[in-house]
Amino acid sequence: MRVRNRKGAPEMMAQNTQYVVENPEAFKGRWSEKFGNENPIHIEVGSGKGAFITGMAQKNPNINYIAIDMQLTVLSYALDKVLELALPNVQLLHVDGSSLTNYFADGEVDQLYLNFSDPWPKSRHEKRRLTYKDFLKTYEMILVKQGQIHFKTDNRGLFEYSLSAMSQYGMTLNQVWLDLHADETFAEQNVKTEYETKFSEKGQVIYRVEAQFQDEMSKMSI
Amino acid sequence: MRVRNRKGAPEMMAQNTQYVVENPEAFKGRWSEKFGNENPIHIEVGSGKGAFITGMAQKNPNINYIAIDMQLTVLSYALDKVLELALPNVQLLHVDGSSLTNYFADGEVDQLYLNFSDPWPKSRHEKRRLTYKDFLKTYEMILVKQGQIHFKTDNRGLFEYSLSAMSQYGMTLNQVWLDLHADETFAEQNVKTEYETKFSEKGQVIYRVEAQFQDEMSKMSI
Ligand SMILES: C[S@@+](CC[C@H](N)C(=O)[O-])C[C@H]1O[C@@H](n2cnc3c(N)ncnc32)[C@H](O)[C@@H]1O
Ligand SMILES: C[S@@+](CC[C@H](N)C(=O)[O-])C[C@H]1O[C@@H](n2cnc3c(N)ncnc32)[C@H](O)[C@@H]1O
Repeated sequence: MRVRNRKGAPEMMAQNTQYVVENPEAFKGRWSEKFGNENPIHIEVGSGKGAFITGMAQKNPNINYIAIDMQLTVLSYALDKVLELALPNVQLLHVDGSSLTNYFADGEVDQLYLNFSDPWPKSRHEKRRLTYKDFLKTYEMILVKQGQIHFKTDNRGLFEYSLSAMSQYGMTLNQVWLDLHADETFAEQNVKTEYETKFSEKGQVIYRVEAQFQDEMSKMSI
Repeated sequence: MRVRNRKGAPEMMAQNTQYVVENPEAFKGRWSEKFGNENPIHIEVGSGKGAFITGMAQKNPNINYIAIDMQLTVLSYALDKVLELALPNVQLLHVDGSSLTNYFADGEVDQLYLNFSDPWPKSRHEKRRLTYKDFLKTYEMILVKQGQIHFKTDNRGLFEYSLSAMSQYGMTLNQVWLDLHADETFAEQNVKTEYETKFSEKGQVIYRVEAQFQDEMSKMSI
């Protein structure tokens, strides 16, 4: 997804350093200090305009959320929402998902969300997919042991790819949904993303998986 | 699936012992003798009326196929096809899939197919699903090391369940299809089952997975 530049977005970001992390390297291993508490930290990589992360933050005040996107403009729309809701448990991080080990210490993150990640359908762009094995390696490093990735998408090709990529990486697929919105029980807890609203209105099926990293010991005992 | 009894089916089966295995225990560890060659052995559990296995046997004369179903009547329809095509590389086995270790030695089977297995949607019937962990254990025992299961179905609930059941068992999902018939490359090699023809004509999406057992060593090296 490419969005048109938003006038004044850089200034807006620079003026709201209570929500927009200025020097993220400085917080590696110290995110709890940033939030001022020891609550679990959940991150979303490729958060876009922030409907999901702000929705989650409202629902779960005892979890700290970090919205990560490499596009400043989309993050500035997420900032609109965080400002409006005055959410104390959200931080916005303008970095590339491939570089997360620069900003998070080993095991510092409790859970990771991917929502409607760019599909990169051509095989030669496989490495850009946020579920490519190098990304999974990065996530594994910053997540707690046996940490989880919760991934939603409407894109069939990306979902097919991701299920096998995660499985081949050695992750366990704890639960899979092939038509998320058909699950009435899950609907109650589901927080929709901007893309999810858009694509489900068009009648697209939404896929979801909860996948978990395995440590070597638990792989042995299977 | 329950089918109406077919008149004369037991007699028909009894008269065609060149295709219908009479005393399957006797062939445990000796299926190559039965087929008269050392070709790989592929089995389908819940083969129904046999369109898949007879189609595969025609396409792959150097593979030996065993169609397994616990309903005599459906197997008798598979026998019709085998007789008509005079296939030397198919045997029909009238047993329950839960008892396969009685009929196959460790590692005697090279590949296993499941097609449109009964969904058993109620949780209290989970143990009857052919991808329940006890069935996976049985398959693992009779399959070669790192053997594969190729599974197709139109049933969303069963497919969701099976992906996570196989993953949680420690299998790797090598490839997943969430709309098999949209894959034009695969279409060339795809052999349709009776249910596949019926449900795809109704517009149902067909799911498929190729999943592989992992030995302990390969789990370690991930
Ligand atoms: C298709 S949008 C989805 C946005 C949102 N998650 C939703 O569901 O509405 C994908 C987002 O991921 C971001 N993105 C893509 N690759 C990224 C990367 N390597 N690191 C950080 N963000 C990335 C894009 O900038 C874009 O905002
Ligand atoms: C829904 S039918 C599908 C038939 C065929 N595979 C197809 O795709 O057209 C399922 C078949 O599995 C058989 N079956 C179910 N449970 C079984 C078991 N435990 N062992 C052997 N066969 C079983 C049933 O008798 C039935 O013929």
